[in-house]
Amino acid sequence: MTETHEIRPGEITLDGGIGPTDDAGVVFIGRIRTPWKRGDCPRNIGPARERMPGTTGARIELDPRFAPALAGLEPGAPVLLIYWMQEARRDLTVQTPRHVGESRGTFALRSPHRPNPTAVSTVIVTAVDPEAATVEIDAIDCFDGTPLVDIKPWIETVDMPPRRA
Amino acid sequence: MTETHEIRPGEITLDGGIGPTDDAGVVFIGRIRTPWKRGDCPRNIGPARERMPGTTGARIELDPRFAPALAGLEPGAPVLLIYWMQEARRDLTVQTPRHVGESRGTFALRSPHRPNPTAVSTVIVTAVDPEAATVEIDAIDCFDGTPLVDIKPWIETVDMPPRRA
Repeated sequence: MTETHEIRPGEITLDGGIGPTDDAGVVFIGRIRTPWKRGDCPRNIGPARERMPGTTGARIELDPRFAPALAGLEPGAPVLLIYWMQEARRDLTVQTPRHVGESRGTFALRSPHRPNPTAVSTVIVTAVDPEAATVEIDAIDCFDGTPLVDIKPWIETVDMPPRRA
Repeated sequence: MTETHEIRPGEITLDGGIGPTDDAGVVFIGRIRTPWKRGDCPRNIGPARERMPGTTGARIELDPRFAPALAGLEPGAPVLLIYWMQEARRDLTVQTPRHVGESRGTFALRSPHRPNPTAVSTVIVTAVDPEAATVEIDAIDCFDGTPLVDIKPWIETVDMPPRRA
């Protein structure tokens, strides 16, 4: 993610920008603590896992008022995390990522730059401490301090694409 | 999802309710059109698929200004949809779903009732019409008219849990 993403050849922005973003409001439920900062962040969770081997290199620090909502979350469980890439641009409809090398629509990319800058990662819970309101996870690919929006159990029958007919 | 979810035994709500929800703002990028309404909605995407066999029973109607962002999205591709369960409660930290039969923390459930009422589904794109700003999908489990927040390509190496060591 780049804080000040400058427009590249082939990129398209919305006329007049993203406009109002008040159809619904988000409450940040906590922050994700990672070793990553700008310029040193893995591109996605694969390299993040390779660079965090055998460690619990990432931790969720939950707003303590939500700690009761952790009940039933067990170490070893896969979960979906939804987080908010707050430094992303919201007005890009077509993008030219450097690693792709051609222009593509935002909805065909996992770029942080999107109308609602959500990210989704599937991670493994390695420890839960409801009293401290913390959750350790195996790895993640976001900057230290990224705001967290949701934690959901990953369910194979729901979250895997259906088998092709 | 129940519009007026009444508190059941074992459920816990936040003191003072959810509070301000303005840490970030969401723009609805479109609506999901489905056959489902209150009282006739499948519990999750499994039964939704069974009840939509061989049809394209669900359609995304995108805000036309985002249509260029569909470029590169192809029929057959699995995508993550993030949508907003706008009628859900946001103050429940512990819930007693009828089909579970015991109390569990919100973050260990896929219930729509959560601090940020997002839902995530993995669906298959069956048709894309950028001029009409529509995307047909194989199935989904939400009410007709549910607001859409994001479309992302599903990527096996990112979205599958890692193999256990």
